[in-house]
This record gives sequence, C-alpha cells and structure tokens, in this order.
Amino acid sequence: MKLSDLKTPALVLDRARLERNVAAMSRRMKAHGVDLRPHMKTAKSAEVARLATAGHSGGITVSTLAEAAYFVRNGFRDITYAVGIVPAKLDAVAALQNEGARITVMTDNVPVARALAEESSAFDAPLRVLIEVDSGLGRGGVAPEDPALVEIARALAAGPNVEPVGVLTHAGHAYACSSVAGIEAVAEAERTAAVAAAGRLRDAGHRCPVVSVGSTPTALFGRSFEGVTEARPGVYVFFDLFQAGLGCCTADDIAISVLASVIGHRPGHGRLLIDAGSLALSQDRSTQSQPEDAGYGLVFDVSGRRRIADLRVARVNQEHGFVEAAGGAVPFDELPIGARVRVMPNHACMTAAAYDRYDVVDGGDEVVAVWDRVNRW
Amino acid sequence: MKLSDLKTPALVLDRARLERNVAAMSRRMKAHGVDLRPHMKTAKSAEVARLATAGHSGGITVSTLAEAAYFVRNGFRDITYAVGIVPAKLDAVAALQNEGARITVMTDNVPVARALAEESSAFDAPLRVLIEVDSGLGRGGVAPEDPALVEIARALAAGPNVEPVGVLTHAGHAYACSSVAGIEAVAEAERTAAVAAAGRLRDAGHRCPVVSVGSTPTALFGRSFEGVTEARPGVYVFFDLFQAGLGCCTADDIAISVLASVIGHRPGHGRLLIDAGSLALSQDRSTQSQPEDAGYGLVFDVSGRRRIADLRVARVNQEHGFVEAAGGAVPFDELPIGARVRVMPNHACMTAAAYDRYDVVDGGDEVVAVWDRVNRW
Repeated sequence: MKLSDLKTPALVLDRARLERNVAAMSRRMKAHGVDLRPHMKTAKSAEVARLATAGHSGGITVSTLAEAAYFVRNGFRDITYAVGIVPAKLDAVAALQNEGARITVMTDNVPVARALAEESSAFDAPLRVLIEVDSGLGRGGVAPEDPALVEIARALAAGPNVEPVGVLTHAGHAYACSSVAGIEAVAEAERTAAVAAAGRLRDAGHRCPVVSVGSTPTALFGRSFEGVTEARPGVYVFFDLFQAGLGCCTADDIAISVLASVIGHRPGHGRLLIDAGSLALSQDRSTQSQPEDAGYGLVFDVSGRRRIADLRVARVNQEHGFVEAAGGAVPFDELPIGARVRVMPNHACMTAAAYDRYDVVDGGDEVVAVWDRVNRW
Repeated sequence: MKLSDLKTPALVLDRARLERNVAAMSRRMKAHGVDLRPHMKTAKSAEVARLATAGHSGGITVSTLAEAAYFVRNGFRDITYAVGIVPAKLDAVAALQNEGARITVMTDNVPVARALAEESSAFDAPLRVLIEVDSGLGRGGVAPEDPALVEIARALAAGPNVEPVGVLTHAGHAYACSSVAGIEAVAEAERTAAVAAAGRLRDAGHRCPVVSVGSTPTALFGRSFEGVTEARPGVYVFFDLFQAGLGCCTADDIAISVLASVIGHRPGHGRLLIDAGSLALSQDRSTQSQPEDAGYGLVFDVSGRRRIADLRVARVNQEHGFVEAAGGAVPFDELPIGARVRVMPNHACMTAAAYDRYDVVDGGDEVVAVWDRVNRW
C-alpha cells in the first residue's frame, strides 16, 4: 500500500521523525536524571508508547480512563491518570487495578480526598493518589502554600487503603510564552512549585516520593530539574506547527500530517479545495496568536518535506478545506483535481483525535505499518 | 440506565426535541411542495435518518463515503454524496451501487466530468451526477452563467453510462447573516441560482430533473421554492447555539448536549472545571461573531432545561472545560465536585463528531435508547 492508494483524508505518521523526537526527549530527561513518563493524550497509541518509554521506567500518563483501559490491554502496568478524579470514576479505576495495573489518580480537593480514603477501603490493592499542584496555569491544583495541600495529604493518610505518592503539576501556561527565556522562567516556576509542595508535605510528616512536572516546552527548555523525579511531556512525540511557533521544534520535526486530495479549483477566488476540513484537521487555531498564523494548517507536497508555495488552509467547513496562498499565487497546475497533499497540523492532539489509525511511513510513500489509537472516553 | 449512571463526558440526545424539529421541517417542506433530502452530516445516525425522511421520498444527503456505506448497510437506497467527487473515489461509489444503492455524485469541473464519463462506462448501473452550482458561498460550484456549466453537462452526456440528474447548490453563506431578512435574501439567491442553472441546462437540451438547494437557515426562511425539487438542510435535526443566535431556533429546541461532571473548583479564579474540554465539546467558536458569545457552550442543569446562573464554558483544554459566569457568580454550592451538568453546543455537527453513540432520553433522566453514529471517512 502506498500513500497514493489510501482513502483521503488519512492521518500519516512519519516514523523516522517520531523516533528522532522520542530519542531526543529521552536523552534530555536522562541527562537530567528524570524519569520520562510520556503523556499519551497526544498519540493514544501503544506503538508510540513503547517507543517513548524505552529506556525509562515504563510508566505513562493518560488523560482519560478509556486511554488507561487501552494501555492496560496493551500491557502497560504503571499509569497516571492526570485529570482530577471524581468518586464516580473509582469503579473503573478499581477494575483496571484488578487486571494487575497500577493506576495513580490525582486530586486537589479535600472532600474528594476524604471520599477516596473512604471508598478505596474495599479495593484489593491500595489506591495511589497524587496531589495536584497549581504552578501558575490556573486550571487544577492547589498552590504550594495553600493550607489545603497538607489537609488533602492528611485526609488521604487517614484512608486505610490509600497510598499517597506525591505531587504533580502541569505548566500549561508555557504555551502562552513568546520566547525561550519566557519558557525557561515558566519551567523554573513549575519545578519550584512542585518541589515546594513536596517539601511542605514532607515537613508535615508525609511521604512524597513522586515530584512530577511536565509539558513539552518546559521539558525541553527547563534548566534545572532538581528535586523533580519525573516529567510528563506529550506532544513532543509528534510536534506541530504551534510547537514550531513556540520554538520547540521546526516544521521538519512534525511527525504527523493529514493526507488530503484536491477536490476543487476556484481560480477566481485564488482558492483550491481539499477534502480535509474542520473534522479532518480540527478547528484548532492556536497559531493565530503567533507571528506566523498557519490558518488551519500548512500545505506540503505528498512527501511531507516541501511546502507548496506559501499555501495554507485559510478556512474550513466540515469536509472542505479552503487552501489559499498567504501572499503569492496558488499553483493550480501543480495541483490538479485528485492531486494529493499533506497538511501539517496546528495542534497534533486535536488533529490526531479525528482518526482511529495511523498510516505509518518511513520517509517514503510506502505505508509500512498501520497503528491503532484509542479515542473517546 | 439513568443519566446519573453514564460515564462522562457523554452525548445526550433528547428525542422529543429531535422529533419536534424533524416534524416542523417536514411540514414546511411539504407545504412548499419540496422533497426533503436531509443532510445526515450532522446526525450520522440511521435512527435519525428514519425519522427525518418519514413522509418524504426516503432520499438522504451525506458528506463522506463512510456515511454512504453506513446508510446503505442500514437500508437507505437513495444517497447524494454532496462533496465534489474525485475519480479515485469512484471505486467506493461503484461498490455501493453494486449493493443496490443509488449513489449520486457531484462535480463542478470539466476534466472531472470527462473522467466520470469515461470511468463509469464499466459500472453495472449508470452513474448519477449532479452539477454543483455556486449561489454565493464561494466554495464549490460553477456560477449559473459560467460557460463551464453547459460544458460539464456536455462532457457528462458524452458518457455512455452517466445519468446527469440536475443541479445542486448550498447557500452556506446564510450562516453569515445577522437578520431574518438577510437569510431570506440568501435563500432567494440560492433558489434563483439553482433555477437559473437548471434553465440554462434545459435550454441547451439537457434534462435537469433535480434542482437541489439547502441549508437549515434557507430552508427555514426561504419564502419561495418555485422551481426547486428538493432541499437538504441538516443541522435542524438537533439545532445548536449558533442556529439559535441566527434566529433559526431557541435554546429549548437544541436536542443534543454533552453530559459532563464537575471535576474541580477554583473559587479564587471564579471558575469551576468540568471533564468536557476541546475533544468533548469541539473547538467551535462560531458564536463568537454573534451578539451572545457562548464561549464553548452554555451550562444547563442535568435536565437540560434550566441554564445554571449565566455559566458558560469560557475556555477549553483537551479534557478540561473552564466554566465561568458571564457576569454574576459561580454557584459552587449547587455544583459540588461530581455534580453533573449538560453543555449546549455551539455547533452540533462538530460536537457530535466526537462521539460514536447517542444516549437518548425522552425529556427525563432515563436513557431510553442508545443510537449509533458513523464517523471518519
């Protein structure tokens, strides 16, 4: 099977780029003495997880319990579910534990901590719980100096079957940075928040073996990981145009793209149409805030290596992408109806979520493997 | 099974609202003597299609060949694939025809018309082809006065096994209107473009039995359908906040919503978190251009009938929705962690695409049915 044989739109994964991205992050984390617990919310793929955990403890991070169940089925045994738990989801956690997996959950809330302490008492294995710390994102988490931090730890410790394992934070506000210096500062804030919270817990007599941080930008640009035990970057496995705009990668590192067919010409509008629209590309517009606004994605040739003129997907409808030139002219002759292009995505997590498979290439146009992925909840 | 037993996030479909929406559009089209060929790109559900086609010819419209295959499997036999065809997709069309379905494809391009004429010669059944007309959207289609219109018809007529069936247009630019008068004008432009194109084809000696128009706003507000044979609205089956902002419905008509759980409280930020983020709600921001910007959706109680304070999803991350009050305060006491809410969507087509099932309710909290839907390509 070749790229020219695939139905479009299709999600193409360039294995060589993936392996390069994965190896670089692994080396970096090893150099800092930090375990890499990759966040699989981007790839949602057992094949990618195997590559990304190589040489590390084998632990992964997930964003849904459907991911957790998929990775347990695929042999992963150490999984952190890094979205605040609610008691109604404990049954699913217990079921996975009973299959032999170690599922670590997370909370930032005293009543939930009390409920975890109580409801886990009937579990076969201890329930592992992290306390979520806010290092500046303003999403989940308690501030390191918030008295609730120790109160949560105390509530967890009161549970006969809870294993409090430490603290976790995510500096997602690194995405708002416009310079490497800015990312470095956020990375340091992420580290110090987590380390400070761990210190307060230890001072209060609680164990805190895990000090978990992580985002792709802070993992790439953090200068110190002192006191940190693990990092949880995710999007680095694929990268995307937003990460390129942040300075985390170049367009040549982007490992996934959407294979699409040209389905219409509108020379009078300076526009051609492709069969990848808001469902196939996502409606992510994160590059809008960056110096180069990529629209809904940049248009490359079918090799994925050469951008065609300065084409980008300027607008999307459900199954139509409106391709326009940023400045010059659309090369209609190079792109007759039926021609194939590859669209580099703004945000890999969002684009990949529209697909249940990766068509894997090794730089060429031969599809060398098909990898599944898990979606939904 | 009750709503309180469902895993969250989940897509809830209110059958009473669906039936009301479907019946109203059916009555309206019958009153105008127009066949209703509902566009199933929104619902992608055989159960919905059965309701929506009741009392009409039974034909439907689809946006992908995966939809076409699903509906053929579910017994539908008359399907218009309303996205410009490319020759590489003809094999899939032929396969569906060989299962007994009548698949009508569409083009706006002379070389494609020639390819259809040639490649369909080996088909068992004639290939039915519509010519796409642009009534002002600027997406696909030839203008009614464009000489290419007749040239395409001539190229198709030269095919030994092509059945040219007429013209199709979609006035998607009705979505940019800010008044009913504006929608009425676009509807009239849609009708006159299609009718003019049909007239030109007939004048040139071509048959043109089908004159197809359609979008939800123009179907609802068009004053005349003279010369039109069928309409293809889609989102009206569910409606959404964008359609409410356009004046096509009220919030009480919206038939789908996302059931979500409260997973975090950040009173210091005036914010609570739910487990429905950019994947569960979509990143659609179409209401941004309307007087009431609904963010990523408005937050209702679990009955789906009462908006809670003036809460909306102000921001999304992949699995987190940031719920904030537009003006007043967030009622944290009413929404403890674990509480459930229903989020009304900006754009039903985008939100529903994240799910492979509908949990159907009949106004109450009992899940009375589970309906599947088809996704991907």
